[in-house]
Amino acid sequence: MQVEAGELLKKIQFPTDLRNLKEADLEQVCKELRQYIVDIVSVNGGHFAASLGVVELTVALHYALNTPYDQILFDVGHQAYGHKILTGRRENFHTNRIFGGLSGFPKRSESEYDSFGVGHSSTSISAALGMAVASEYKGETDRQHVAIIGDGALTGGMAFEALNHAGIEKSNLLVILNDNCMSIDPNVGAMKEYLTSITTSKSYNKFRDDLVSVLSKISKNGPNAYGWAKKLEQSIKGTLLKNSNLFESLNFRYFGPVDGHDVNKLVKTIEDLKHINGPKLLHVVTVKGKGYALAEKDQTKWHAPGLFDKITGEIKKSVPDKPQPPKYQDVFGHTLVELAESNDKIMGITPAMPSGSSMNIMMKAMPNRAFDVGIAEQHAVTFSAGLAAQGLVPFCNIYSSFMQRAYDQVIHDVALQNLNVVFCLDRAGLVGADGPTHHGAYDIAFMRCVPNLVVSSPMNEEELRNLMYTAQLPDKGPFVIRYPRGNGVMPDWKHPFKELTIGKGRKVCDGEEIAILTFGHIGNEASKAIQKLSEDGIHPAHYDLRFAKPLDTELLHEVFKKYRKVITVEDGCLPGGIGSAVIEFMSENQYDADVTRLGIPDTIVEHGEQQELWQICGYDATGIEAAVRKLTTGIKTESLVG
Amino acid sequence: MQVEAGELLKKIQFPTDLRNLKEADLEQVCKELRQYIVDIVSVNGGHFAASLGVVELTVALHYALNTPYDQILFDVGHQAYGHKILTGRRENFHTNRIFGGLSGFPKRSESEYDSFGVGHSSTSISAALGMAVASEYKGETDRQHVAIIGDGALTGGMAFEALNHAGIEKSNLLVILNDNCMSIDPNVGAMKEYLTSITTSKSYNKFRDDLVSVLSKISKNGPNAYGWAKKLEQSIKGTLLKNSNLFESLNFRYFGPVDGHDVNKLVKTIEDLKHINGPKLLHVVTVKGKGYALAEKDQTKWHAPGLFDKITGEIKKSVPDKPQPPKYQDVFGHTLVELAESNDKIMGITPAMPSGSSMNIMMKAMPNRAFDVGIAEQHAVTFSAGLAAQGLVPFCNIYSSFMQRAYDQVIHDVALQNLNVVFCLDRAGLVGADGPTHHGAYDIAFMRCVPNLVVSSPMNEEELRNLMYTAQLPDKGPFVIRYPRGNGVMPDWKHPFKELTIGKGRKVCDGEEIAILTFGHIGNEASKAIQKLSEDGIHPAHYDLRFAKPLDTELLHEVFKKYRKVITVEDGCLPGGIGSAVIEFMSENQYDADVTRLGIPDTIVEHGEQQELWQICGYDATGIEAAVRKLTTGIKTESLVG
Repeated sequence: MQVEAGELLKKIQFPTDLRNLKEADLEQVCKELRQYIVDIVSVNGGHFAASLGVVELTVALHYALNTPYDQILFDVGHQAYGHKILTGRRENFHTNRIFGGLSGFPKRSESEYDSFGVGHSSTSISAALGMAVASEYKGETDRQHVAIIGDGALTGGMAFEALNHAGIEKSNLLVILNDNCMSIDPNVGAMKEYLTSITTSKSYNKFRDDLVSVLSKISKNGPNAYGWAKKLEQSIKGTLLKNSNLFESLNFRYFGPVDGHDVNKLVKTIEDLKHINGPKLLHVVTVKGKGYALAEKDQTKWHAPGLFDKITGEIKKSVPDKPQPPKYQDVFGHTLVELAESNDKIMGITPAMPSGSSMNIMMKAMPNRAFDVGIAEQHAVTFSAGLAAQGLVPFCNIYSSFMQRAYDQVIHDVALQNLNVVFCLDRAGLVGADGPTHHGAYDIAFMRCVPNLVVSSPMNEEELRNLMYTAQLPDKGPFVIRYPRGNGVMPDWKHPFKELTIGKGRKVCDGEEIAILTFGHIGNEASKAIQKLSEDGIHPAHYDLRFAKPLDTELLHEVFKKYRKVITVEDGCLPGGIGSAVIEFMSENQYDADVTRLGIPDTIVEHGEQQELWQICGYDATGIEAAVRKLTTGIKTESLVG
Repeated sequence: MQVEAGELLKKIQFPTDLRNLKEADLEQVCKELRQYIVDIVSVNGGHFAASLGVVELTVALHYALNTPYDQILFDVGHQAYGHKILTGRRENFHTNRIFGGLSGFPKRSESEYDSFGVGHSSTSISAALGMAVASEYKGETDRQHVAIIGDGALTGGMAFEALNHAGIEKSNLLVILNDNCMSIDPNVGAMKEYLTSITTSKSYNKFRDDLVSVLSKISKNGPNAYGWAKKLEQSIKGTLLKNSNLFESLNFRYFGPVDGHDVNKLVKTIEDLKHINGPKLLHVVTVKGKGYALAEKDQTKWHAPGLFDKITGEIKKSVPDKPQPPKYQDVFGHTLVELAESNDKIMGITPAMPSGSSMNIMMKAMPNRAFDVGIAEQHAVTFSAGLAAQGLVPFCNIYSSFMQRAYDQVIHDVALQNLNVVFCLDRAGLVGADGPTHHGAYDIAFMRCVPNLVVSSPMNEEELRNLMYTAQLPDKGPFVIRYPRGNGVMPDWKHPFKELTIGKGRKVCDGEEIAILTFGHIGNEASKAIQKLSEDGIHPAHYDLRFAKPLDTELLHEVFKKYRKVITVEDGCLPGGIGSAVIEFMSENQYDADVTRLGIPDTIVEHGEQQELWQICGYDATGIEAAVRKLTTGIKTESLVG
């Protein structure tokens, strides 16, 4: 749905139009831009509070800098809606996050103003430094490179690695710290407390400004005082000031904190900073959700609220006429607490995703046993390994695509030591509107090659509960449970726990001639296909593999002895996936069968509705049905020939 | 080879024996321990300088703490030889790094004194924090948890993630910063400069001690001076001091710097710190190689010097009677400079491995185009992506097992954006004595599932050169080249460059009945096997696949049309590896063949000689030969039956 832009905003197709306005007009531009974001997101959905928080900063950057020659990189990218609207995409902005439409994140292929694609946290300083070093090498010394990073993203280790390197390069890099005390959930950690202390207390910068006058006044009190004051000044200047700010410790010149909602002050500051070479950091204080009162008040809820009435603030929910199955994440959250009540060894760990993973349920119920460790997947995994080394049973919940960040820690700190860490990989498979950066496409392939791991996936809520129950029983070793974004299939799911045998799948239904082997929730699409096919008298068998590692070899022997036509279905990449594991088994056991592997093909899958993407990739119910029919035709052809 | 221990060291089987000695004896213990390390390493090889640097710290920790109840974690673990010798392993220490002997790193399964297995950098704070939190939860409030981390390892992002989390936990964690200005090569980055500044300048701590007296003297100069001084003091205490040290900014209590070679001072300090709760950091200054003059002087060379004459310091090298093939790493290093001389877009990036990767050759030849970014694999990859986004062609050299650290960055920042970054994965495959933490076992599986990547491996030096040449030609996209630790096979290797067609392998030799498909250097083992088999009139064909992605489908069609018995050989894990890719191809194209996949099995492979491990895993020349003979027998049996 299109909406009308304000009078000034209407005139801005590209930043050059913005730069033709007077500085006095910028406040009004901000107002209109903020209104436009509210108008669009309320009817189209998407990320909300983050972009509202950086309206002034976004306008100031494009006004003060010569984009796209000057390069601005938004870390994560939730906050880049204003940027998109100002850079040639206002009229298409209603297609945001829709299949074939704009991406919800900056994306190089979408616009030359998107200097670098983002989605995952903490990458912007590294990338901007690379660009700055390249510009310096190419002699483009006037070119500006700006990384805009939140205080949450700054806790990600690679941001620190980048600061450490940037501090010894002389290239033209500006890091803008967008300090709003929030990740998606409230930000945590010592760094947050530090930033609060330099923002709210009489600041070190203020002190530095005062120092000269104070010292000069002291020294007026006679020769002795003068001597001591001088000594003190030297000592302060030589040692203390140089190291007294965390960022200055790392060779960055630190500026701020400044009010991130004063657009004219921001313009002036950014213009000033253009002329200061080397690594520098501007500390900007903003309010996430700024300008929309409800969002300012409950920032987590308004991170990505869905559709809402922009006047009343009422979030629109479709009211179902019968009980709906729960989200898998909530089954995880409630089940974890249930298990932890009877097993005091269980602990919960999330890297900055309390609400997204539903770990917040345990954090509320058992605050001393559930940890939000910040945007820090690597630390989350090795911290969990440390807990496990002491005999505890940590449930470490990390989205599948974010687990790519902690792959080495899974191998090196957990699998090699065979420690009892339970990894719950939420958002496994295609996630929908967040698109390629967030698809959990690779975890089956990258996990099943690691020794000692159990890799499992539930087909429904009850299986998720039972896998979680099984994983926390003694001595199960490292245990991966992957499940998708979204809802399950069982409105009534709270059944008593049952231990599952590791490496055992199950037969969902018997059948004829063709067997479908599925892994996880996507098996429900197979069930739908089978239902449909039965109307035409086609009855493939259906097996739920449940474990990608170890494979259920007994079940597979049964399948390959009985069926010569087999379809594997997974919500994961085809190369190296579970279908690949199945044909490894076949090859080792010299079975001969016609195998069709359905899953994510070896290309980048763009954003769209989850169900829509499954269909495009050919493994939703219609895709599975088509694959069966194709094999059936084959059977008929053969018998005709025979 | 066993060596004799000194009089005091002889009496120490376990730390309890050490703790029975008087403090006055500790210096002598250190002397004997240092001598023992020199004696053993000079004749058995292994890591050297790091352990010499922490002799006093190791003795002090075991003396002052109640190990193994108190837990000490050495980051990386190169420096843990003294620890191993003091904890029940002196008499076995001569088996260090030998197959079936002690591991070169701390390892949980080896000793209860090894609290946590290590090998990769920067994990110790996370793991120690996990243990500390677990102890607190279990009510073991007297238990100590100590992470000993070098200033190099501290630049790894996950160490910062851990500090950020630890700063808000109240559990009993002591981080000992072993500051010696070294990684394997000299340490780099802003943090290093910061640590040098607080160590060498009149330190902030000294200043803090002086402050009170200075201020009291100023205030004696009359009422006005008193007022200003007081204001100044409040300002300093309230704001400056609180944040004035980087570690204190993160809520750690900071102590030091102290002399890391004063064992009695260290004992006293560690004992004092036991009684201070919460997160604390002790800054210890040491000299890598301490006590062995040559090692102190050239710390990189003496990191792991091999065998040497402990008196003369002469490093023993076996003198070959004819020219030897070069190390792959040196082919990389020299070729990169050669290519960069004619392509000014090429840049070189190494995360703290200049000497190990031979990137130091380019760093010396073209200092403005080659970057050591510190122990920071994640940053190294995204920094490279930033360079590539500006049109440059970065060669980012990362050991295969360390690339596990930057997996998300490869996917998210390079592959999704299809940027021209060339990843050179040194130490791919089994690496030998460094063992399981360092084996490059998984990269084929975890790389070939990622869209847009080219995944290649050279069978010899010339192929490595040509792959590097091909990768830097325009618009080749992300390009992975994996090669093993050690020497190639071509003494004369500097041939003119030739472009290779991406996705094209080659036939090494024609043959009968059986085809061997190999990937990379391990193909030379197949050549040896074929040579041997020819003596018995058995002549398998041999194909060098060269690309795991994209596969050479034309070559594979040729193979599967001609051969019904196929052996794949890879120096990588079997699940999801290139053998798996080959059978995916077979399945898709409905070929039927008896395929034997040789490679690293789905278990943890321990340390040993590289050739020895290949043999154990069954893919050295003898293993390949055996696999061929087994298939040959099969042919005979079949024909008998037929």
